[in-house]
Amino acid sequence: MNQFIEFQQQYLKQFNDYLHQQLVQEVHQPQVLEGMLYSLDAGGKRIRPFLMLATLKSLQDNTIITDYFKIAGSIELIHTYSLIHDDLPEMDNDDYRRGQLTNHKKFTPARAVLAGDSLLTHAFIWLTANQLPSEIKTQLVQILAQSAGANGMIAGQMIDIINTGKKLSLEEVTHLDNQKTGALITAAVQMGALCGQASADVMFHLQRFSQDFGLAFQIYDDLLDVTGSQSQLGKKVGKDQLEGKNTYVRLLGIAPAQKKLAAIVQAARQELTEVHLDKSILADALKYFD
Amino acid sequence: MNQFIEFQQQYLKQFNDYLHQQLVQEVHQPQVLEGMLYSLDAGGKRIRPFLMLATLKSLQDNTIITDYFKIAGSIELIHTYSLIHDDLPEMDNDDYRRGQLTNHKKFTPARAVLAGDSLLTHAFIWLTANQLPSEIKTQLVQILAQSAGANGMIAGQMIDIINTGKKLSLEEVTHLDNQKTGALITAAVQMGALCGQASADVMFHLQRFSQDFGLAFQIYDDLLDVTGSQSQLGKKVGKDQLEGKNTYVRLLGIAPAQKKLAAIVQAARQELTEVHLDKSILADALKYFD
Repeated sequence: MNQFIEFQQQYLKQFNDYLHQQLVQEVHQPQVLEGMLYSLDAGGKRIRPFLMLATLKSLQDNTIITDYFKIAGSIELIHTYSLIHDDLPEMDNDDYRRGQLTNHKKFTPARAVLAGDSLLTHAFIWLTANQLPSEIKTQLVQILAQSAGANGMIAGQMIDIINTGKKLSLEEVTHLDNQKTGALITAAVQMGALCGQASADVMFHLQRFSQDFGLAFQIYDDLLDVTGSQSQLGKKVGKDQLEGKNTYVRLLGIAPAQKKLAAIVQAARQELTEVHLDKSILADALKYFD
Repeated sequence: MNQFIEFQQQYLKQFNDYLHQQLVQEVHQPQVLEGMLYSLDAGGKRIRPFLMLATLKSLQDNTIITDYFKIAGSIELIHTYSLIHDDLPEMDNDDYRRGQLTNHKKFTPARAVLAGDSLLTHAFIWLTANQLPSEIKTQLVQILAQSAGANGMIAGQMIDIINTGKKLSLEEVTHLDNQKTGALITAAVQMGALCGQASADVMFHLQRFSQDFGLAFQIYDDLLDVTGSQSQLGKKVGKDQLEGKNTYVRLLGIAPAQKKLAAIVQAARQELTEVHLDKSILADALKYFD
């Protein structure tokens, strides 16, 4: 039994419908709405918002989860915008994403830039238009903007772009991934912890957990690029390899990367044990890497 | 004597230095910082942030203006991001902006996308990392995100893109400009009014003032495109005309556009008279269109 997957299955359809309906209600320009929905509705695993919700649920079991859909959704808006911009011709130049044409292939690169910009901006509307106290809202904005911004995800993407084709050290790749992928995952857990009123000690260990989770996520993704199938990935297999991207698999080889993944998952689990969350929904999210 | 220009001259250098220094202190990835600074430091008239500050000053003369540089700066970050993305090859494909190479020409389109994304995201960091009460911070985030987002500036840009080459009606052009240019100008005045604790009545008239100001700004800009010089514009003269952009000059002709501009400036001044701000710094901002 995996509590995280059960939790996700319990709310996934409702969450997806909520995101869709909110945008339909809130966005009035048809082409902007169409571009936003096209990529948001493409699905994906919704790992980040469900990490946020699972963190909250693990800390406060009696929370009404649906009350936090807008907060969790803001993280998915940011993630979706980053995919649209990353896929652009001048960036990774990808044709497929989540098993469908990328946003700029479906529409135009100009419209894809705007779809990304509007999803990014809309995240901050959702973080401040809800029933939470203002103090919490402003902290949520800080966490999400810091993690998504110039010192977080965007820094990671920049380092990735300027180093594609050059071989990086393991330390450099870890740093890159911490920013590019890890920052938003860490933000998701932090946002859940903030909404769940975690103590400073719990916050400390959850932060370490989330950093490990983010790193594990990237290694797992790199492994999938060589061991997965196109249907599993929703994009071309071996693309990272082909483009000389700096992946763990390229640096370490497959078996050592698998071993590193297992060690990090173990470390992440230990962080949860420290704060008695080792039997929680959140702990079960680590089974994703099994 | 123009109080607005005096006010701007008094603080402009300090404001520009502040924006630069804050980013240098806050952004740690060199290439991201470089891309952000390149376009931010290019100058421009800083009309939007100074409208915000002038609104505040007009309402509360004893305010310490420098305390609000971060709030005013957040508007300039949004404006600068929008210019970078608008100039991209897939958008307006401009080579020059503010008298220097556009961001994507100086660096690469990929880096320009990221510079824009990071400026946009950073605006929300500035709006929530300051000494204002949380209630004000969250309202500022709402105002700026709504005006910059899917129902504001981005909607205007989308309508512009999908209609370039088609002739729009005057009503349609007005609607387009209200969103593309007007929204952020309205936001600047609203943000100043919020910080200056304007009453509901003052807020109402300031909002109407700002809508007029935004429209006047666009007509003035359209007129400059045909009557200005490249050094005055910092970009190619006659470009809008050449590309079949829907401008007031194209729709109305030069003289009627000038007449319309004068009427709107008069209406804007009247709004200020209603709330006894007709002798204020803000009123003098209308002399920009003389």
